[in-house]
Amino acid sequence: MPPSTHSRRLLPLFLGLFQGALLLFFALFVAYDEASAQAEDTILVANQVYSTFPFFQDIQVMLVVGLGLLLTFLPRYGFSALTHNFLLLIFSVQWALVLQGLLHHFHHGQIHLDLHKLLISEFAAVTVLISVGAILGRASPCQLLVMAICEIPVYLTSEWVIVTCLGVQDVGGTITIHVFSCYFGLGVSKGLFRATQQPLHPKETPTSRSDLMSLVGTLILWVFWPSFVAVLCQPGNAQHRAILNTLLAMNASAITTVVASSLLERDGRLSPGHLQNGSLAGGVAIGVVADMSMPPVAALALGSLSAVVCVLGFRFLAPLLGRKLTFHDQCGIHNLHGLPGILGAAASVVAVLVASKDTSGSHSFQPSPVGGNEWGAAGAVGGPQP
Amino acid sequence: MPPSTHSRRLLPLFLGLFQGALLLFFALFVAYDEASAQAEDTILVANQVYSTFPFFQDIQVMLVVGLGLLLTFLPRYGFSALTHNFLLLIFSVQWALVLQGLLHHFHHGQIHLDLHKLLISEFAAVTVLISVGAILGRASPCQLLVMAICEIPVYLTSEWVIVTCLGVQDVGGTITIHVFSCYFGLGVSKGLFRATQQPLHPKETPTSRSDLMSLVGTLILWVFWPSFVAVLCQPGNAQHRAILNTLLAMNASAITTVVASSLLERDGRLSPGHLQNGSLAGGVAIGVVADMSMPPVAALALGSLSAVVCVLGFRFLAPLLGRKLTFHDQCGIHNLHGLPGILGAAASVVAVLVASKDTSGSHSFQPSPVGGNEWGAAGAVGGPQP
Amino acid sequence: MPPSTHSRRLLPLFLGLFQGALLLFFALFVAYDEASAQAEDTILVANQVYSTFPFFQDIQVMLVVGLGLLLTFLPRYGFSALTHNFLLLIFSVQWALVLQGLLHHFHHGQIHLDLHKLLISEFAAVTVLISVGAILGRASPCQLLVMAICEIPVYLTSEWVIVTCLGVQDVGGTITIHVFSCYFGLGVSKGLFRATQQPLHPKETPTSRSDLMSLVGTLILWVFWPSFVAVLCQPGNAQHRAILNTLLAMNASAITTVVASSLLERDGRLSPGHLQNGSLAGGVAIGVVADMSMPPVAALALGSLSAVVCVLGFRFLAPLLGRKLTFHDQCGIHNLHGLPGILGAAASVVAVLVASKDTSGSHSFQPSPVGGNEWGAAGAVGGPQP
Repeated sequence: MPPSTHSRRLLPLFLGLFQGALLLFFALFVAYDEASAQAEDTILVANQVYSTFPFFQDIQVMLVVGLGLLLTFLPRYGFSALTHNFLLLIFSVQWALVLQGLLHHFHHGQIHLDLHKLLISEFAAVTVLISVGAILGRASPCQLLVMAICEIPVYLTSEWVIVTCLGVQDVGGTITIHVFSCYFGLGVSKGLFRATQQPLHPKETPTSRSDLMSLVGTLILWVFWPSFVAVLCQPGNAQHRAILNTLLAMNASAITTVVASSLLERDGRLSPGHLQNGSLAGGVAIGVVADMSMPPVAALALGSLSAVVCVLGFRFLAPLLGRKLTFHDQCGIHNLHGLPGILGAAASVVAVLVASKDTSGSHSFQPSPVGGNEWGAAGAVGGPQP
Repeated sequence: MPPSTHSRRLLPLFLGLFQGALLLFFALFVAYDEASAQAEDTILVANQVYSTFPFFQDIQVMLVVGLGLLLTFLPRYGFSALTHNFLLLIFSVQWALVLQGLLHHFHHGQIHLDLHKLLISEFAAVTVLISVGAILGRASPCQLLVMAICEIPVYLTSEWVIVTCLGVQDVGGTITIHVFSCYFGLGVSKGLFRATQQPLHPKETPTSRSDLMSLVGTLILWVFWPSFVAVLCQPGNAQHRAILNTLLAMNASAITTVVASSLLERDGRLSPGHLQNGSLAGGVAIGVVADMSMPPVAALALGSLSAVVCVLGFRFLAPLLGRKLTFHDQCGIHNLHGLPGILGAAASVVAVLVASKDTSGSHSFQPSPVGGNEWGAAGAVGGPQP
Repeated sequence: MPPSTHSRRLLPLFLGLFQGALLLFFALFVAYDEASAQAEDTILVANQVYSTFPFFQDIQVMLVVGLGLLLTFLPRYGFSALTHNFLLLIFSVQWALVLQGLLHHFHHGQIHLDLHKLLISEFAAVTVLISVGAILGRASPCQLLVMAICEIPVYLTSEWVIVTCLGVQDVGGTITIHVFSCYFGLGVSKGLFRATQQPLHPKETPTSRSDLMSLVGTLILWVFWPSFVAVLCQPGNAQHRAILNTLLAMNASAITTVVASSLLERDGRLSPGHLQNGSLAGGVAIGVVADMSMPPVAALALGSLSAVVCVLGFRFLAPLLGRKLTFHDQCGIHNLHGLPGILGAAASVVAVLVASKDTSGSHSFQPSPVGGNEWGAAGAVGGPQP
């Protein structure tokens, strides 16, 4: 058996063992919530499903179809990119479900599964999908899975520190997801490809067709990004604001990307890579402040600024990092997730400082009058219907 | 006029006559529900629309875009596959609407049209779209339409026998839709291409690009499958459970497909055809048990098993059937819809037997307290709001 | 600096100035609605979000992904078509937001932003995206932006005249959007390319692959069209009717397109261009009558008729207009938006006349019992929950 075939046998063994262990874990510990059959409870659950499920589906489309297509910009690697993205998502969601269940939801020897917990696991899985961008097309599927196994617990720890210990509100995951996964991915890339200053592989030059497919992926992500940012917000004003802020930021970053890219390229042409990434930079940056009560102009400005740093990152910082520190960042995740994420974090500090001067709390997050229901996202809606 | 042009004239004549007859039928018998203008009724209808329409749109995307793209894996047949799938869907929905209206909803000489009836017709049309997979690229559009004309009434009869007479609950259509349409399609294929052991047509070899588009179709189907399974469930716990079970089953079948396919292929490579079909096998199998109160591990196990039988079917059973019984099954519908469907049916028998031992009925389907509203799917939500 | 580079510098300057002015405008005049933190208001806003946002996302997918892909039928112009469509949409939405804010929503020196106002601006932006079809691939991005700047205020004026002054109800924008933007676009095309009878550019011949992508765009538009027509309807019966009427009209126009196109083409083949456009003609025509209480057969008939005029337009009228009046209409917007729109307008006149004879008002638009809430689209739902 030649070595390449040998390594190919590793993947099914690895995944098979994982699936077997998962079955065992589910058999022992996971159950559905046995809600009472009373009419009020039925209506409550129904309303929670109706208020969460459309957002959930939007996010699934983003991650499975949108992100998958975005990664097909390497023409010969298209099918693999789509497949690896899909596999990694599923694997990471289930792995996160297990870990989060053990850490947070383990009561009386059981974990009660619901749509909200799946959604939270999906958020954890996003970190893996982002980090992979740094080593796209260079790592074997097994290496990607090992990365996923390591990244999810590190993410859960970091998220616990940031949200629970430091009390940072980050509904859109700007810091907990985007900044974290960017530097995790860069670290993995550095670790895996430390010594080798590889030349550009021929399959790494996008063609006009692969750029088109990749842009379709960007547009799908662009359209559904507000759902990603707003799904975990408090229903009502906060969620409404999060949707609007995200829409404004993404509009601004798309236009600013065109401006910045055209000005920086020598022939004045818009670079496809800039457009595919810069249009989304606003969504990355806005996450941490999306539901705060700030003036709409702040969302616009943040979107514009994040597109500028993203394009500048692609044009100047990335080549510098590659040459000086021999960083490999295949998809430019540092420009899309790292820099705009840091910008968003800075913006949230400013917002909190400004708000604390105004005496009106920045996050007007009173617990909803309903309380006591596990699905934060659906509280206010399901609640007061008697 | 050469014969090929002659046969091409048949299609518009056929469709034109159908559309004319449909206009006549609608003019004579179809009306909208003249709901009263009272405030409570308005709210009821509005809630029914909001709770059904997003699911309905998801299913439309699945059938028109997802399934259409999945069928474009034959490179030269891509445009036709997309077009034929689209046409057949519309034709079959309208034909099913007429037949179901006559059979079930004909009161005082009128059929009252609503979104729920369109949805039910859409389910009937799915059978045609599945059966077509057996003869994709080999039959003329007119042959496909004749097949649709015959299949819809047979489906309605078989569904009536299974659901009404035998009392089988099958929210996701595992038996009534998938198993039925698989064997119907294989029968048609056998009937049409009985004698001819045709060699593989050159346009029947997928390229890497057509495989990519087809995989995008698979992913769209994969993402929206929970909507298909859950749309007709009782709102509340049952619908919530159906969504979760479907998600678990589809996760499991995607991972298991990779395991099984890589182990079975000699070079350890993942076969695109296996991935495109096996990932969906869990959704096929879970339909009949999705809303039952069973432990989550059962959904995972069923998803894994169905992927195994699907891949085994592609690898061993399909070539055998083709050689021994000269069955033509272009898209492998027997592997995706037949085998997993039978597995799901067997699982439902087990579930019912286990549940009857537990004394807790497997389907905890008490009629909702609202009652009396025609749209089963939206009862509990719209209902108790005073 | 050569002239082509010079003109390329114009685009970033133009967009940069616009974005700067927008930031200034937002800083001075735009704020979020500071809704009270009372429980009832929170529930009201939450319900408005849940009843509007899924429709809004559907429309975003239509415009960004569906329409973008539809325009990629020119093979070498695919990436640019997708990009220009995206940019123009964002630009026009923001420009419409500013103008509509100044005209309609300027109270006490402030404009209160909400999802409904963004939706209305999106409708205004659609006119630009349609008009662009007439000059696709022939105009520079700057020319397109100048067109957008001029078209939005003209649209707002024309919409004000038609809806407010003349009292025409046009929920789906048949007259205000489709007919208006068609003739605006043709006028621009005539003005820009008056003298030059340009030969067909080689990049203007679709290939089988570009036709496939374009058909995918059509199918996405086809699936989500009911959301576009129904989003601004009164919730309850009117919205339900609008969804059903649009579904019926689009079904009918897809089938009729196949009939008409196959009969008219000499070899009996279905023309991809006809299918890509004719399938949508029913959606264009139905908009103005979608929520009226008319029998379902009227929607079917209108869908069929509009497909016929669309295909006839492509086959006979467009070549005639091109030759006689030297009209350039790259995408055939006159056939898809002009003729079916006029047909829909005529149908609405008939519907109003018939209804006035029946003494039952055609639009049964009593103000919802809630009243006083700014989001017309969500009134009845959020309202009566105590």
